Amino acid sequence: HNRLHIKGGRVVNADCSVDADVYIENGLIVKVIGIFLFFVRICVCLVGKNLDVPGGTRVVDASGKLVMPGGIDTHTHMQLPFMGTFAVDDFYVGTKAAIAGGTTMIIDFVLDQKGVSLIEAYDKWRGWADPKVCCDYSFHIAVTWWSPQVKSEMAELAKNRGINSFKMFMAYKDVFMLDDSELYEVYKNCRELGALAMMHAENGHVIQHEQERMLNLGITGPEGHALCRPEDVEAEATGRAIMIANRLNCPMYIVHVMSKSSADPIAASLGTDGTNYWHKCWRHAAGHVMGPPLRPDPTTPGYLMDLLANGDLECTGTDNCTFNASQKALGKDNFAKIPNGVNGVEDRMSVIWEKGVASGKMDENRFVAVTSTNAAKVFNIYPQKGVIAPGSDADIIIWDAEATRTISAKTHHQAVDFNIFEGLVCHGVNSCTISRGKVVYEAEDNKFTVSGGDGKFVPR
Amino acid sequence: HNRLHIKGGRVVNADCSVDADVYIENGLIVKVIGIFLFFVRICVCLVGKNLDVPGGTRVVDASGKLVMPGGIDTHTHMQLPFMGTFAVDDFYVGTKAAIAGGTTMIIDFVLDQKGVSLIEAYDKWRGWADPKVCCDYSFHIAVTWWSPQVKSEMAELAKNRGINSFKMFMAYKDVFMLDDSELYEVYKNCRELGALAMMHAENGHVIQHEQERMLNLGITGPEGHALCRPEDVEAEATGRAIMIANRLNCPMYIVHVMSKSSADPIAASLGTDGTNYWHKCWRHAAGHVMGPPLRPDPTTPGYLMDLLANGDLECTGTDNCTFNASQKALGKDNFAKIPNGVNGVEDRMSVIWEKGVASGKMDENRFVAVTSTNAAKVFNIYPQKGVIAPGSDADIIIWDAEATRTISAKTHHQAVDFNIFEGLVCHGVNSCTISRGKVVYEAEDNKFTVSGGDGKFVPR
Amino acid sequence: HNRLHIKGGRVVNADCSVDADVYIENGLIVKVIGIFLFFVRICVCLVGKNLDVPGGTRVVDASGKLVMPGGIDTHTHMQLPFMGTFAVDDFYVGTKAAIAGGTTMIIDFVLDQKGVSLIEAYDKWRGWADPKVCCDYSFHIAVTWWSPQVKSEMAELAKNRGINSFKMFMAYKDVFMLDDSELYEVYKNCRELGALAMMHAENGHVIQHEQERMLNLGITGPEGHALCRPEDVEAEATGRAIMIANRLNCPMYIVHVMSKSSADPIAASLGTDGTNYWHKCWRHAAGHVMGPPLRPDPTTPGYLMDLLANGDLECTGTDNCTFNASQKALGKDNFAKIPNGVNGVEDRMSVIWEKGVASGKMDENRFVAVTSTNAAKVFNIYPQKGVIAPGSDADIIIWDAEATRTISAKTHHQAVDFNIFEGLVCHGVNSCTISRGKVVYEAEDNKFTVSGGDGKFVPR
Amino acid sequence: HNRLHIKGGRVVNADCSVDADVYIENGLIVKVIGIFLFFVRICVCLVGKNLDVPGGTRVVDASGKLVMPGGIDTHTHMQLPFMGTFAVDDFYVGTKAAIAGGTTMIIDFVLDQKGVSLIEAYDKWRGWADPKVCCDYSFHIAVTWWSPQVKSEMAELAKNRGINSFKMFMAYKDVFMLDDSELYEVYKNCRELGALAMMHAENGHVIQHEQERMLNLGITGPEGHALCRPEDVEAEATGRAIMIANRLNCPMYIVHVMSKSSADPIAASLGTDGTNYWHKCWRHAAGHVMGPPLRPDPTTPGYLMDLLANGDLECTGTDNCTFNASQKALGKDNFAKIPNGVNGVEDRMSVIWEKGVASGKMDENRFVAVTSTNAAKVFNIYPQKGVIAPGSDADIIIWDAEATRTISAKTHHQAVDFNIFEGLVCHGVNSCTISRGKVVYEAEDNKFTVSGGDGKFVPR
Repeated sequence: HNRLHIKGGRVVNADCSVDADVYIENGLIVKVIGIFLFFVRICVCLVGKNLDVPGGTRVVDASGKLVMPGGIDTHTHMQLPFMGTFAVDDFYVGTKAAIAGGTTMIIDFVLDQKGVSLIEAYDKWRGWADPKVCCDYSFHIAVTWWSPQVKSEMAELAKNRGINSFKMFMAYKDVFMLDDSELYEVYKNCRELGALAMMHAENGHVIQHEQERMLNLGITGPEGHALCRPEDVEAEATGRAIMIANRLNCPMYIVHVMSKSSADPIAASLGTDGTNYWHKCWRHAAGHVMGPPLRPDPTTPGYLMDLLANGDLECTGTDNCTFNASQKALGKDNFAKIPNGVNGVEDRMSVIWEKGVASGKMDENRFVAVTSTNAAKVFNIYPQKGVIAPGSDADIIIWDAEATRTISAKTHHQAVDFNIFEGLVCHGVNSCTISRGKVVYEAEDNKFTVSGGDGKFVPR
Repeated sequence: HNRLHIKGGRVVNADCSVDADVYIENGLIVKVIGIFLFFVRICVCLVGKNLDVPGGTRVVDASGKLVMPGGIDTHTHMQLPFMGTFAVDDFYVGTKAAIAGGTTMIIDFVLDQKGVSLIEAYDKWRGWADPKVCCDYSFHIAVTWWSPQVKSEMAELAKNRGINSFKMFMAYKDVFMLDDSELYEVYKNCRELGALAMMHAENGHVIQHEQERMLNLGITGPEGHALCRPEDVEAEATGRAIMIANRLNCPMYIVHVMSKSSADPIAASLGTDGTNYWHKCWRHAAGHVMGPPLRPDPTTPGYLMDLLANGDLECTGTDNCTFNASQKALGKDNFAKIPNGVNGVEDRMSVIWEKGVASGKMDENRFVAVTSTNAAKVFNIYPQKGVIAPGSDADIIIWDAEATRTISAKTHHQAVDFNIFEGLVCHGVNSCTISRGKVVYEAEDNKFTVSGGDGKFVPR
Repeated sequence: HNRLHIKGGRVVNADCSVDADVYIENGLIVKVIGIFLFFVRICVCLVGKNLDVPGGTRVVDASGKLVMPGGIDTHTHMQLPFMGTFAVDDFYVGTKAAIAGGTTMIIDFVLDQKGVSLIEAYDKWRGWADPKVCCDYSFHIAVTWWSPQVKSEMAELAKNRGINSFKMFMAYKDVFMLDDSELYEVYKNCRELGALAMMHAENGHVIQHEQERMLNLGITGPEGHALCRPEDVEAEATGRAIMIANRLNCPMYIVHVMSKSSADPIAASLGTDGTNYWHKCWRHAAGHVMGPPLRPDPTTPGYLMDLLANGDLECTGTDNCTFNASQKALGKDNFAKIPNGVNGVEDRMSVIWEKGVASGKMDENRFVAVTSTNAAKVFNIYPQKGVIAPGSDADIIIWDAEATRTISAKTHHQAVDFNIFEGLVCHGVNSCTISRGKVVYEAEDNKFTVSGGDGKFVPR
Repeated sequence: HNRLHIKGGRVVNADCSVDADVYIENGLIVKVIGIFLFFVRICVCLVGKNLDVPGGTRVVDASGKLVMPGGIDTHTHMQLPFMGTFAVDDFYVGTKAAIAGGTTMIIDFVLDQKGVSLIEAYDKWRGWADPKVCCDYSFHIAVTWWSPQVKSEMAELAKNRGINSFKMFMAYKDVFMLDDSELYEVYKNCRELGALAMMHAENGHVIQHEQERMLNLGITGPEGHALCRPEDVEAEATGRAIMIANRLNCPMYIVHVMSKSSADPIAASLGTDGTNYWHKCWRHAAGHVMGPPLRPDPTTPGYLMDLLANGDLECTGTDNCTFNASQKALGKDNFAKIPNGVNGVEDRMSVIWEKGVASGKMDENRFVAVTSTNAAKVFNIYPQKGVIAPGSDADIIIWDAEATRTISAKTHHQAVDFNIFEGLVCHGVNSCTISRGKVVYEAEDNKFTVSGGDGKFVPR
């Protein structure tokens, strides 16, 4: 059945909210008919007395709820091979958890070794994702080395494979790191291709030395992870990346913004903080290990949320990249060997609502902007995604601002056995997810009606 | 005739641009039908093969041009009684010039003496404006004194007269200035009414003393105006206003942003600078006298434009308040007696396009945002104004980005005999203005089809 | 006996340290004879083989200790009449406590009501202090109103009574507060007299309103004191004071620097913080009430110490103004009636040593600079005070950097029954104080050899 | 003759000024006898009625003049081999010019190729300097590569050869540049040795790429030098250097501070600016080529002087490194081949006096601090140098604050045929220079009484 009528809700877009019905056919939004005071004038001439819906249309009741564009998580690493293991959330489990949480699109990373053809890597990742994804997705491509081949492959990817964002690393020396000359070349190429340059900004030289220094001092626990990556290591690299990009007038996107000193804030850094690295439970501490680390300053999450609310920060991703206790245990005696990564793809929407909207820092429109619309604009898929308007994809969530839920590893849908937001009570819960015009998740009975491969790759 | 079909143009809104036709009936936008690749899917189901327009509809050809929401000038002072004279642009000439330049709404100020009833002042200004305005308009109300009566009149204006913004002065001591205690009370009242507090932020105590000092030093020319109002006099008051507003969680809008140190930049400060106060022609120098003054630092206009482009600043007004040479001559021997005010209502759109878009700092969507959409949102008339969408008012301009014109007092439509942007060549010209669904100005033959009183007061 | 020989210590000045003996006659330093490698060359030609000391000279052994200029506390309020009571430390007890702690000069405030002649107030305070002081002292004069009489009295005080610093208030509305026009006049007069303008920078209008708001909300405890005086109330006024001073090129000294946002940090704000206002013991909380308040951000003391260490802040005072539990109890049910003031005159040197030098943020030379030398320079008594050099006053302390002591109200020499630094362990203890060439305090047996009136007024 | 009596002048030190005589024997200051009101008390007991000077002592009349510590230029490159040529000011001409201008000590750089032993380089430079210098001098050693040998040679130099400062480059890729890992190692070693790390902070990767880009665009003139090294290339590297130093708690000294965005301002950047790179005379433009370049923003010199005056900047060097027109012509068709360097060692004192003291931004004491005392402290030769006090070296200048001179290549004492300060009128002229207790230069008849080799190496 391919017709849907969302009835009686309040449609929330990034620019304004209206009480309106939404009518969907074949995965696309066809009409948004407001019934509020102002628009009533026009509604009359448009549709007569009310929305004219064909018989047999499925009706979704959204009374008393908010009808919003589905979330876009700009930063995930499903089933990533990393430090000798794989992230436990694969493209199936990960995207299923995403839709449970209200996210209808992820942008994942193709991230392979130095020397590997970018095209081959892209094909490999497509091969992993296509049969498994439960929602739409796209890829950023990591550029971990530089050569004439890389240059021409970037062009091929941008022109013929739907890729308009490339990611580079200033950290992970000898693994992913590029030096400033290589960065300059990649930026220049991005500029020429009209692609977006994304940056993991931490000084890899310094981190390597500091890791050695910590281990020499006998600091082998997860707190070493934070100690060897202090805020200014991130701030410095951020400043450097901006300077190089400015030389070339190349648009740039700083991927992680964990600290006050730098700017894509990660859901993790909005919902929790780096004091956890000193937690006496090793599993707890190791569970928070990611790069850049969460910051020990407990005022950081509030500060980042303020920036997000006032427009200095625009998007939110999660860096969802999950490892179980047994995997994290690889670094039992050496923090440098703990696989980096935390959860977030499922809980991002709730955490931002709780910390942003429920706390009074932002309104529902700004919430849509930072969880969906801005990402669609930045990554060039607007207005296909990120807005509820005629012609847009019907990726929609129905949000119950009155409901509450408590986040827990026991109840979440991700594969990982730990949740960094454990115990957080969220006011604001996704009650229904619609992907490509189809109801795929209903919270009431925790029911999924989706299969691996239902999602599609979205060329940008 | 009340049907209009704008054909073949590119519709530019604050969020994105589409090649689309616009169909208008009875002053309201009825349909926006895109014909670009993506939306074509939906267009089919909406309107069949093409836009179905009733016979006898007037067609406006917008081929090769941009179709944008008409500009909103958030800050004008038409026929203001000030320093013993009246601004020469009255509500007729001023709004006629506005539509020539592509502005379809102004927000003017009701600004009366201390002790005068706000309601009486409001009625007086409505009496001046209603029979004369050529485009829609609204009012901010200045609060220049404080008493229980003022408190209750603010409530009456907010609840029953369509006013949601009040303006206060930290300058013009003994005339309009409130002290910090009074400001606190007004802010508190704004907060309770849900109204916006606007602030003219300069330290009036210091300006008064500095004026005396300058005159004592024998500095009587227009340069004295700048010298007695240095940047930090504005920056200080801005900081103070923000602090008081923060105490009360009261939203606030800084009216003038003339200098790097503060934040609503005025078109004048984007297009010219304060070096003009040292111009050897007295008329030229006096022609730039406004409060706060333009700044001598020649990098200021570029800096403000950067802020506007990157989102730190949101709206643009003009403080259009014009006086002729004979009026300015009141201050021939004493700069403190030169009536404050400059032109701008006609040229604002062109100047911002030239300095912002033509220079490469912002794109066409950001242009719409800063000249129209953001103002509509801030002053609570969105989506009635500020967007081209079904149901919105048909206040539309057709912009020729390829055309050029040279600004001059000889050719402008304002009454004043001087133009602070004299000689500026603008790439980007308004070719046609539509107000309330009616073509009111065509640039080709400089033809107006509008009468005083065609505009309406817009309650907010 | 009027000759003293300090033997075997390390003389620490603000510019450098040398192992040297100090010889004193009639209250003045006569010779400083270094015996270190470099200076030995010159010593030979100066004094022959060693220091030639007359028979009968008292010898003070300073082996292993630091010989430093006595501290100068730039900000005390001994026996201040305030809020209907008197500060319990009068000029005798207060200065006795000062010398115990290593401070050999205080600068107190003449602070009287609006309308009172400045000369009369000055005479009244001289009458209180002269018979009681145990160490040298001087006065700042508070200007709490403005008139031609005040103007001429300021001139008289500056020219004939040894006063070169005047203090104004932007807080305490209707009591001490001046408006911006009056401040402008006082600054202008200071500028003409060559005197220093000092400022208590908090916005009195806003504080008054906020006090009412807190009391209306039912917040009557000491935390209300902090809540109605948030950081930006201080930051705003500081910025305003600077702006006005800049207009007149008038040197200015911000008296209290309690918060990160502003700059004379008070010992209290270096050693403790504003979380104490939420202490569940009312006496404890009330004991910290001062204006501006200590700040709740626990990183503030460290931040201020950094600024002090790196030269952005120059001097340290204490605002010593002490009230007993029974006096503080005046505000039991209304925080606005708690007499403002804390201790500090005795413990300032130890607290700064502990937080600054012992913590590694500054060296011993910077310690001398911020506790003594800079104050002497700013208030124009250098090199009479603030340095150990031939010709300077013999105000000297002998500092034992190896000793420790624990601060406590049980053992301190002040009259007040509470100590805001209670329990702080200080590494670095004053072991001997020399005032005007006479040993006045020895820590070993807690022995004072000083009487009220031994100190002198120091005209500046 | 080895006794000198400087009579009747005003002795200016960094802390205060006194009217005093100075008596010198064997190159050292023996007595400073003030005759001002305050010190007179002590003078009596010290020396009886007046200064007791042996017969036959040469008397220098300093009536009406200022007696100040001779200047220390912390940054010169005499006879530097660079880009295939040698700087034309060798150690003889350069130091002779220095003493003419009032500078009595320079700190030059040992700067050799990657792979060359630091000890060998040190010996080579000592061999060049020792027979030629006319005033005292010292060396910083450049570390342009890293190896265990370099590590141990740094230790040898610090412990046994009087070197306590090492300089590294973040620019000059493939020539002098170290990567961040090498910098980390050098800093760590400096920290362990207690030596000062100095940094030339510009991003060498980016400059190399930008040079190519400029040349490809056909920009071959001196303006290309500025265009390929914009301010943020310097600001970025400065931030990076600070971050790395912070990791290791290593004191650091940023060598060039040319721009507002960064911190050792060079005399050139205080006296002139980067608009000269666009000068239509190629020789004029090329004459200003140095790295980092002077900045085009004309407000930069004033801004840097403000920082110097208020204590945010501490020292001043010149980067004196001079090349003649024929040498600069190597880069006639390619700005990248213009030998980098400008004059300054002679004019530094006058330029800073003119822009700092004559302009009213700083007083004479701050002038001594920034031209001499602070350098002596930073580089650990205080109080041997940098102060007029008993025991200090008699490196003294007699400054005529009333005289004026006009800077010109026609009259200067340097070898180079160009002067970047050409035509600057300086109020404040050095009238007599005393080095090691000997009059070596008298301005009145432009007389030098000094030979190459009279200066000595000063171990630190």
